[in-house]
Amino acid sequence: MSMPAVRTLALIGVGLIGGSWVLGLREAGLVRGEVVGCGRSMSNLKTALERGIIDSATTDPRVAVQGADLVVVAVPLGAVGPVLGTIRDHLAGDAVITDVGSAKGRVMADAAEALTHRYSRFVPGHPIAGNEKSGAGAAFPELFRQRRVILTPAEETDADALERVTQLWTAVGASVTHMTAAHHDDVLAATSHLPHMLAYSLVDTLSRWSDRDEVFAYAAGGFRDFTRIASSDPGMWRDICIANREALLVALERYMSDLAALHETIQAGDGARLEAVFRHARDARNRFLTMLES
Amino acid sequence: MSMPAVRTLALIGVGLIGGSWVLGLREAGLVRGEVVGCGRSMSNLKTALERGIIDSATTDPRVAVQGADLVVVAVPLGAVGPVLGTIRDHLAGDAVITDVGSAKGRVMADAAEALTHRYSRFVPGHPIAGNEKSGAGAAFPELFRQRRVILTPAEETDADALERVTQLWTAVGASVTHMTAAHHDDVLAATSHLPHMLAYSLVDTLSRWSDRDEVFAYAAGGFRDFTRIASSDPGMWRDICIANREALLVALERYMSDLAALHETIQAGDGARLEAVFRHARDARNRFLTMLES
Repeated sequence: MSMPAVRTLALIGVGLIGGSWVLGLREAGLVRGEVVGCGRSMSNLKTALERGIIDSATTDPRVAVQGADLVVVAVPLGAVGPVLGTIRDHLAGDAVITDVGSAKGRVMADAAEALTHRYSRFVPGHPIAGNEKSGAGAAFPELFRQRRVILTPAEETDADALERVTQLWTAVGASVTHMTAAHHDDVLAATSHLPHMLAYSLVDTLSRWSDRDEVFAYAAGGFRDFTRIASSDPGMWRDICIANREALLVALERYMSDLAALHETIQAGDGARLEAVFRHARDARNRFLTMLES
Repeated sequence: MSMPAVRTLALIGVGLIGGSWVLGLREAGLVRGEVVGCGRSMSNLKTALERGIIDSATTDPRVAVQGADLVVVAVPLGAVGPVLGTIRDHLAGDAVITDVGSAKGRVMADAAEALTHRYSRFVPGHPIAGNEKSGAGAAFPELFRQRRVILTPAEETDADALERVTQLWTAVGASVTHMTAAHHDDVLAATSHLPHMLAYSLVDTLSRWSDRDEVFAYAAGGFRDFTRIASSDPGMWRDICIANREALLVALERYMSDLAALHETIQAGDGARLEAVFRHARDARNRFLTMLES
């Protein structure tokens, strides 16, 4: 497979995800020319320059995309549409644009509206990776190794643009899948957005307990693991909730209904049923772990 | 503080918790005589003998406690009462009996009924430690270092018995607190029992999703952490739900009500409110981690 290097790369939003992708592409020898970083925080751009993620920095997205053949938009979900609208008339003729947002239906609707005739060059993407850290200082080239990246092309997405972005994710070690945006949004609502809501809600509930400090003092390791995702960025999760609202509400309602059934089983003191539910869940999780490791 | 060694120790239920306590006591030089292990599985007792946790093995609790000055009952919650009833008339006159169960109100009611006139020698205990592993093969002497152990003495508990058990937990590195059983059960319902229900319920919900395999295939690291406790022993958790039903139902109802409020906020698309909830939860969790580390 021939894999032409990127000539000029514009990275709009120089955080953990975008920064790590660029570092991985550099390590794979796939950045021939310059990487222009664009962001709002000068101190973060300075870090990105010092760490060799970007070669030059600007706070103006229109300047950043000039002459770029690849434009990576790695900003919070709510900012994708405005950024695309701002850069549309400044894009190079052959530019491929891609994003990394966690809710694809909304991003694609925003992108279609903002990019108009350039929308066919937009490849919606979502790397299933990341952690609770953020910023250019947290980026590292191995972040996407053995991780999944989902691309959700529209009917009008150019085949060559899709192929290009697929190659550039594969080059940093990711396993790339294509699916519809609707399907992506359902799957992510279940496996990522719902668990985040449950963890945030648990910490919120406990933090308003009357003897809160004591409650936290006796929390064990299981609690720490369980609530790790409640340390994620609040603004990012606000955006995800808004952007993937419909699918998230469906997942949340299904969960609330199952939890109400569990409540009834506990209330009834039905030990056999409780054990069956727990056993079923444990076995499902263990099968899932085996699947991940194989 | 003088710390007299244990003369003869009867360990009824030779698993992760009981086995680790004995290994810790041995390492601290606090076991002068023999440790008699009692269990239902000969293969687990054999492992405990080979690992030097116990010196002799029996499947009869009445035989195990003969001449023992310390009796550790480390069996599933539902079995504590029956075991105590079986051993009552075979205990040495000065024997101190203690347990490690996660729901103290129920254990104490069972113990009072089963031990009758020997109940004042019973010290209800709960080490906040453990992991998803179980059995004598998983035991290790450092399990309780820097972990909390809660003792919940009754009014009639002998002061010397309470002091003895406090010393023996302190000797293996634990930080020991005394509180009422009712308070213990409320705190543990919130920090341990509730999170386990939420994790079991999430895996259960997802395992009945229509495209289940795909859902699990795209689950990321956060999901793995979040559901780790759903790999815990189903029978143990059935017993905990039954034993701490009242406090668990209160915690679960409070959570369900908060989750319903979050659902409404998402439905209303109230971004400012969502961000405030997430920020509040993140900050509470971070304060909790700082507290744990200090």
